Amino acid sequence: MKNIQIDQFRVTSKISLQSIPTVLAQELTKKEKKSMLNEYREQLSEHQDTMYAHAKYGVLICLQGMDTAGKDSLIREVFKELNARGVVVHSFKTPTSLELKHDYLWRHYLALPARGKYSVFNRTHYENVLVTRVHPYYLMNENIPGIDSVEDITPDFWQKRFEQIRNFEQHIAENGTVIFKFYLHLSKEEQRQRLLRRLENKKHNWKFSPGDLEERALWDKYQQYYEEAINETSKPHAPWFIIPSDDKKIARVIVAKIIYETMTKIEGIQEPELDESILKNIQKYHDILAKE
Amino acid sequence: MKNIQIDQFRVTSKISLQSIPTVLAQELTKKEKKSMLNEYREQLSEHQDTMYAHAKYGVLICLQGMDTAGKDSLIREVFKELNARGVVVHSFKTPTSLELKHDYLWRHYLALPARGKYSVFNRTHYENVLVTRVHPYYLMNENIPGIDSVEDITPDFWQKRFEQIRNFEQHIAENGTVIFKFYLHLSKEEQRQRLLRRLENKKHNWKFSPGDLEERALWDKYQQYYEEAINETSKPHAPWFIIPSDDKKIARVIVAKIIYETMTKIEGIQEPELDESILKNIQKYHDILAKE
Repeated sequence: MKNIQIDQFRVTSKISLQSIPTVLAQELTKKEKKSMLNEYREQLSEHQDTMYAHAKYGVLICLQGMDTAGKDSLIREVFKELNARGVVVHSFKTPTSLELKHDYLWRHYLALPARGKYSVFNRTHYENVLVTRVHPYYLMNENIPGIDSVEDITPDFWQKRFEQIRNFEQHIAENGTVIFKFYLHLSKEEQRQRLLRRLENKKHNWKFSPGDLEERALWDKYQQYYEEAINETSKPHAPWFIIPSDDKKIARVIVAKIIYETMTKIEGIQEPELDESILKNIQKYHDILAKE
Repeated sequence: MKNIQIDQFRVTSKISLQSIPTVLAQELTKKEKKSMLNEYREQLSEHQDTMYAHAKYGVLICLQGMDTAGKDSLIREVFKELNARGVVVHSFKTPTSLELKHDYLWRHYLALPARGKYSVFNRTHYENVLVTRVHPYYLMNENIPGIDSVEDITPDFWQKRFEQIRNFEQHIAENGTVIFKFYLHLSKEEQRQRLLRRLENKKHNWKFSPGDLEERALWDKYQQYYEEAINETSKPHAPWFIIPSDDKKIARVIVAKIIYETMTKIEGIQEPELDESILKNIQKYHDILAKE
């Protein structure tokens, strides 16, 4: 099996999205991709039981990417082998009126993973410095004191949001949440191809909305804000990984490998041991049952 | 009506609890206390409607104090005139197993006020640096990575918690939550009298638990940790107020006055105006109904 070094995807210094490839340099055969994905997700599933038993760490998986980047199918494929008991997927859409009555992190805070479980955020709290920044009038729905019109939104406002997000992630990391943030990095041309396929294939027509083209027209703005968000919030306890995603199957292999390798290296989530007081009487318990 | 300056109770620099009186210097007659409380809570109720209509600010009222300090009766009396639609009281007891599966702020985050509403926290997130600090083995229930025994809890651990709490409060303040933190300051002798009354009055016996005496024995430790928590987390956007509480009725008057005066001074929560497009047709709407 080919060896893909996961550290190459981790953001550890200031990055420029434009200079990062959307295609993996290494080539993998179809068979290799399939067998690698299978292996990682099976091992992850085995490790999940141990993690669940310890109930010490929760795992937060954040998925971001432009339209058609492959977030939904990645979730379906990567977490396929996990026990559903221990994984919850949250797809964050336009905020509801109840959600808008609270600060923008509130609905994400509610959805944080319990110890021993995975929470997968399909689109995340980062939308508040991405889509909201591209369309600043969305902010008016939040009714934030001091922000009465679009003119009130200064660059400092976005800096504050980055700080708030950094503090939020630091807090949950310090209290036992393992954080992964994946940016599915897609080329503009590949997005065009995928949108075309949605229009050409009757079965996939439903996935298309005219809004997709409007958002695509704002591609450069999105890239700029993604880049800034990633640079402002990459931390050792809450790293961003930039995943080459022009090939969906490669993206899934890489994400699965990153999660698997990181999780199994965390100290203190080994096979749980039976309490000593139970262990020393294990023969006794066995006898009781055997003789019943 | 006597004038009580509310600023005298606000913590703006490092304090020593021991040197702050538990009795108000000014004397008030029974009648004065009653009429003042009535006035503040009625005005607060009137202002609540406006605040609710604007749905811009949420208000978080944090109440802390030693046993018998009068938290429950203060809530009953101060918020009596508020419309129940816009106020929710949360009494935080021993965390449930679901709550323990999340970081210690999670249950408080869930209970934050919606815009336009009041949330009253009867005991608060500060218990995590008070009762938990007095009884550090409580922390073992939280199953925090790195804290496997009481020996793992360094002074730095509590400093981190203070920082986490400061960041949490800063975030919600920046996003529209008005925060009040009240410490009901009680003398040890007054607590003794109140506990004695609980034992002497058959009707109040139920309020007593032997645990009260165990906690009372730890009085000095609690005072020390309260003092540190107050000094570490007093901020202009999240101020602590130290309320002399040996006289419960005085404490209620002061708390009501602080909330009322602060809330009515906030800009942008004036009587809401009707939308101009409706306003210019108001005569027309009136005619329709009149002729019906």
